[in-house]
Parts: sequence; C-alpha cells; structure tokens
Amino acid sequence: MIHRIRKLQEQMEEANLDLVLVMDPRDVYYYTGTGQPANLLIPREGGPLLQIRRAWKQAVRECRIDHKYLLKGGSFRELSISVEALNHPKCHLGLAMEAIPVSLANKVQKHFPSSLFFDASPLILAQRSIKNSEEIEMVRAAARCYEEVHQTILEELRPGVSELYLSARILEAVRRTGADMIIRNRRWDASLAPDGIIASSKNACEISGHAMTVTGKGLSPTLPWGASEDIIEEGELVVVDLGINLRGYHADIARTYVAGPADQKQKEIFGKVYSLQEAALSELKGGALAEDIYWLAYEQAAEMEMVQYFQGHGDMQGNYIGHGLGLEIDEPPVLQVDNRTALSAGMIFAIEPKFIIPGWGAVVLEDDVLVTETGYEFLSTVPRELFAVEG
Amino acid sequence: MIHRIRKLQEQMEEANLDLVLVMDPRDVYYYTGTGQPANLLIPREGGPLLQIRRAWKQAVRECRIDHKYLLKGGSFRELSISVEALNHPKCHLGLAMEAIPVSLANKVQKHFPSSLFFDASPLILAQRSIKNSEEIEMVRAAARCYEEVHQTILEELRPGVSELYLSARILEAVRRTGADMIIRNRRWDASLAPDGIIASSKNACEISGHAMTVTGKGLSPTLPWGASEDIIEEGELVVVDLGINLRGYHADIARTYVAGPADQKQKEIFGKVYSLQEAALSELKGGALAEDIYWLAYEQAAEMEMVQYFQGHGDMQGNYIGHGLGLEIDEPPVLQVDNRTALSAGMIFAIEPKFIIPGWGAVVLEDDVLVTETGYEFLSTVPRELFAVEG
Repeated sequence: MIHRIRKLQEQMEEANLDLVLVMDPRDVYYYTGTGQPANLLIPREGGPLLQIRRAWKQAVRECRIDHKYLLKGGSFRELSISVEALNHPKCHLGLAMEAIPVSLANKVQKHFPSSLFFDASPLILAQRSIKNSEEIEMVRAAARCYEEVHQTILEELRPGVSELYLSARILEAVRRTGADMIIRNRRWDASLAPDGIIASSKNACEISGHAMTVTGKGLSPTLPWGASEDIIEEGELVVVDLGINLRGYHADIARTYVAGPADQKQKEIFGKVYSLQEAALSELKGGALAEDIYWLAYEQAAEMEMVQYFQGHGDMQGNYIGHGLGLEIDEPPVLQVDNRTALSAGMIFAIEPKFIIPGWGAVVLEDDVLVTETGYEFLSTVPRELFAVEG
Repeated sequence: MIHRIRKLQEQMEEANLDLVLVMDPRDVYYYTGTGQPANLLIPREGGPLLQIRRAWKQAVRECRIDHKYLLKGGSFRELSISVEALNHPKCHLGLAMEAIPVSLANKVQKHFPSSLFFDASPLILAQRSIKNSEEIEMVRAAARCYEEVHQTILEELRPGVSELYLSARILEAVRRTGADMIIRNRRWDASLAPDGIIASSKNACEISGHAMTVTGKGLSPTLPWGASEDIIEEGELVVVDLGINLRGYHADIARTYVAGPADQKQKEIFGKVYSLQEAALSELKGGALAEDIYWLAYEQAAEMEMVQYFQGHGDMQGNYIGHGLGLEIDEPPVLQVDNRTALSAGMIFAIEPKFIIPGWGAVVLEDDVLVTETGYEFLSTVPRELFAVEG
C-alpha cells in the first residue's frame, strides 16, 4: 500500500504539509493494512514510520507495507526524534482534526512543540473517495449481503410482529454473512447500529438524532433511533435502512416493505421515489458536480409538487440525495447543496431519495452505485421494488 | 436531574472552573435526560442552558430538567452571548477533552476567545461513578439480559459450529431482550461490538487491539477481535465476554464454556480463576482503594504460581482486575496498579479475573457488582461455574 502513501506525499507537497500523523484506525488501515492500534507518521519525502502500539505480532502479519518501516512502541517522543522534519523551525503537521480528541492532540503538541497543526482529513478523505478495484469488490460483496437480509424480511415480516423482533432476525441474518457488528462513522457523536433503522409508518415520520431522514423511534432516550417495541400493523409501510460492514467496507441500502397488500397511495409514492432515484442517476458520471445530482432529484420532486416531503419535512428537511461510502458509511463527497466537487470514476455513492409524509409514513429507496467515466454501475442487487409481504 | 447539575456546580467551584460545556451525548443525557444532539452549558452559578441542535420536539419530550432552560439552535455564538461569565477576562472553560475532537474544540474557541480550556472529564466521570438507585436498577436489568444469552449458548454451543454462528445466535437473543446494538465507550479509537468477544481455545490466546485481555481473532484486519469463522472443536473452551447496553446502561459479563465434557485441567483452572475473583471481592467495599482490589487477586495468582498467565501473558499482561461501568462500558475508576482512588458505596464494577495460557486457551469469569458501605452485592445473576455443554 506504499503507493497510497506516495500519493498522499504528493498531495502534502501541494498542501504545504511537512508531516502527517495518521492515528484514526480507518486511515491507518487504508495506508498500511493493519487495524491494530498504531501511529503512522508520513513525512513529505522519504519512507513512513509505522509505530505499533500493541499486538506487534498481529500487526506485522497484517501489514501491507515493507516491514522496515515498522517500529514498536507508543511514545510520541520516540516518533518525534525519528523524523528530521522537526528540525524545521515551524513544521506543518497534519492531523485528522475531526477524528482525534483534544487530549490526544495535546499530547502530540507536547512532543512536536514547534509544529503548527493543520487538518489532514480533507486530503486523506479525498484520496479515500476514489476506490481501486479491490475496494470496489469489497463494497460489492458488502452490498450483496443485503440479499440475505431481504430474504429474512420476506420470511419474517407480518402484521403483529414488533420492529424489535424484525431487528433481531435481521441481525442474525446479517451477522451470518460475516458482517461485522460495528458501523464505522467518522462523526464523533453519531452512532449507527448494525441493525440499521427499522421503522413502521407511525415511526417513520419521526426525525431524530443527527441525520435528517427516517430514523424511527428507538427504545430509549439514550439511543432514540432504530427499531422500537411497537407492533407492525396490517398494511403498514416498513422502512429498513441498513449499513453493512463486511471486512471493513460498507454498503448502505434501504428498501420499503408493506406488511400485507400495498394500497394505491403506497404504490404511487413508491413510484415517485423511484423516479427521484432515476433522476439523480440520470447524470451520474465522472465530471458531474455533487450538488447537481441533488438538484436533479429536487427538480423531479418539485415537478411532482412533493417538495414539502422531499428528504424530510418542516424544519427537518435534508438537503442531500446521497453520500460516499467505503471504510466508513458516510464519506465525502456528499451529494448536497453547495458541494461543487467534481465526481470521479471510482467513487461509490449511496443514492437515497425519500418522501416522509407526516401522519402517513415514509418510502425510502437507497442503492449503492459505482461512478464510471460514462455513467454508473449498480453494486446493490436487490430489485428496486416496493415489497408487499402478504405472508 | 437539576440536582446533578447543582452537584457539578459545587465541584466546579473547587476546581476553579467558570463554565462547563457538555457535548458528549452520554454526559448530556446524564445531566438532562435527552439523547438528542444538544450542547449543555453550565455556569458555576445559576441555571444551565440546554441548546437543542436538532429534534426539538423529541428533546423537549425526553428532557428531565425544567424547560425554561431549553433553547433551540446549534451556534456557539448564541450560546456565548447568553452567558455572563464571558465578561471575565479569562474564563475557565471545562470540556471533555478525551471525548470531543479537535475541530469541534476549535469552533468553541472561536466563540469563547478569551477562555482557557480545561479538562472537565475527571469531574463529570467522578460524579457519574456513583450511581443512584435508579441507575443501579438499570445496570441490574442489563445484567439480567445475560440469562437469555446464557440459555442460548447452552442450546447452541456444540462441536462443529463456528464462533460466528454462535455470535449470530447470541445477537438475536440479546437484541430480543431489548438491548441496543451499540456498546458505548469513551475511548475514541476502541470499538466493542454488541456480540462481544467469542473465542474458542485456539483464539483465546490471541491478544489484539486495545484491550489487554481475551480478544479473539475477528474476521478481518479492520476489526481484529471478536468471533471468527473458525470451527469450535470437541472439548474446546469457549470464552463469551459480552457488553450489554439496555436503555443506556451497560452490563459486562463473561462466562467460560466447554464444547463437551470438561477435562481436569479446565476444571482446575476455572477453580483458580474463581478464587481470584473471590480474593478481589473479599475486601470490596466503600473506602477500599482501587489498586488494592487488583493486588488481592494478584497475590492469589502469585500463591498459585500462575502470575505469568494472570490477565494475559508475556508483554501483553494487563495490570487491572476490573473497571467501573454505567452509561459507558468502561468507566473510572479502574481497579488497577497505582490507582489510589477510594471506592464509594454506589459504585458498580465489573470484576474480571482471567488466566490466558499460550497454546492452551483462557478462562474468564466476569461479574458486575455494586459496592456498598460494608461489602458488595452481585448484579449479575448467572451461576459462577464452568459450563460444560454436552449437547
């Protein structure tokens, strides 16, 4: 993975960073292949240093950079005396500012006293946003796990079961595919559970927590989103929005089900959400601008005179239609208002249009797609339908 | 919960803090009752301000402090102009330094420019370490969920199943008790899955990741702990070490099982681990010093001439015998070397002695106990036995 480090070094040149100290476990894994606790110090020129804080044996086994770059220990002092760049009077040191806590940055500061700190996350995340073929296959494999989940829902969803019961069955199904039960998210205070969001109509109008979307009600004020103990009634819509972390790479997929036959309005709203997704996809390709993908869906909603329910309602409306994903479930670029990032082939997005209608329910359709030079390719495999589960 | 805020204000007086800005969701919940995104500003004197960043309706419903303290919005500027203390030339502002990221602290700094930052976590966590009767019942209820997990293991464990299969069955069982699928941990870069650690003998000697203990092997380098796809063989020990988060409060329980009849050595080592736990418990009560509880178990291990396997082996030996728990699975005080904290009635600890023997396996016994004035009370309910599951 040394070529990834070389690539970052080129970017450091442009960004005028002398050093980047990588400590977020997802970032360390991206550049080295190990998920063990470690600090990775990358100077603008020359070889990196990977300081293994614990589990040396496993880290050496996992590591995909030359072992000559590895050293044992966890002291920033040792790290600081190992790099020449510190002789500079004002070393520009990059850290992932939105990931690492203040107390840790203060420790770093102590041992790199003449350094000025800069945020290295934009560089790292921009690099991570373009996936290579191995990473694409990882996300594709994660997305495929939803097939098992879908099958479980078709078997288990019926009027009279609780959201929680369905959640427990989904968890077993997704775990048996080999998925990990931690969904990675860079945002320090958000948290997504491995059973995702399971929300029947009455709870699908609740918009809670950090995300402006279908969140469901949850089981207590300490985690007020996700499945609740509420019973799913005959004919209710049930949104299942699931993050899947398979061996480190995430898929993010949502389907909407009906506990019984679908009525006319449910079919009609699903059809409209499908059109929103098609609109967003219609110009998705290398070179498109992130916000334009949002506006395509927005305009479609406006044409339907449904803007007031598009991506939420009232003062809880999201201004995005999708987001990148990979080692984390929500990565830049976000397909949202004012984001003028040009998309590139190799980026992967979750495209997630929804209508949330107060007092009625919600329909969500979320799929994972790979951007190519000329268009896109679906990574998620389950049909894009409203599934009426008639038992 | 205003009395909790009053209590913190008294501590702020002693610690010479003018303001504490509480942003960690567990801390906000502790002082207010809401788990919605919010900033809680506590001046040394007078009423707090709870700024609700999103989901106003839910936050108001959840909140257990007077609604006159609530305001809508998310801007630190609005918050800063709402407090008089800022007229002080050098306002001492407390933040949870090990929880919040640098980028967020930088934003706070911008709007509280004359403030000096101090770490408020020690105050907050010391307060949180002593549980009231409601909190004790929450942990007791969480601990009781292990009974369902235990029953599932007795039914499902047999030679030929994989650790992953057992994990999937445990997940379903624990979720059906109403437990949440996110285990809270203040440590920014650690992560514990809701199916905990499931490690058969061959993998119970692996010591990986952040914790110096039985970690198992996991499924990939991105999460190299927890269950693996390895098959459990006839006669193998299987350690199950599970965190359970029920409506915000955690239990942390471990039992060791045998897939088949237990042999003499397995029984003997279990008996020794049991003695370690008894030794640790023998002086557990209000007034005892945290490290003394560790040394009691250590001395017992020394008497058995088993110190080399006590809490790990080689350069991966932990120097603790237990830790506090509550809104997070690992809270201070830690019962470890050099911790001279005096224990108080109302503290809850997970007491987790273990022997990890290279090439053989591990035995862990972990129970949750409440410290009283005169001793302790068990909160975990499953018998402290080595369970030979003979199918």
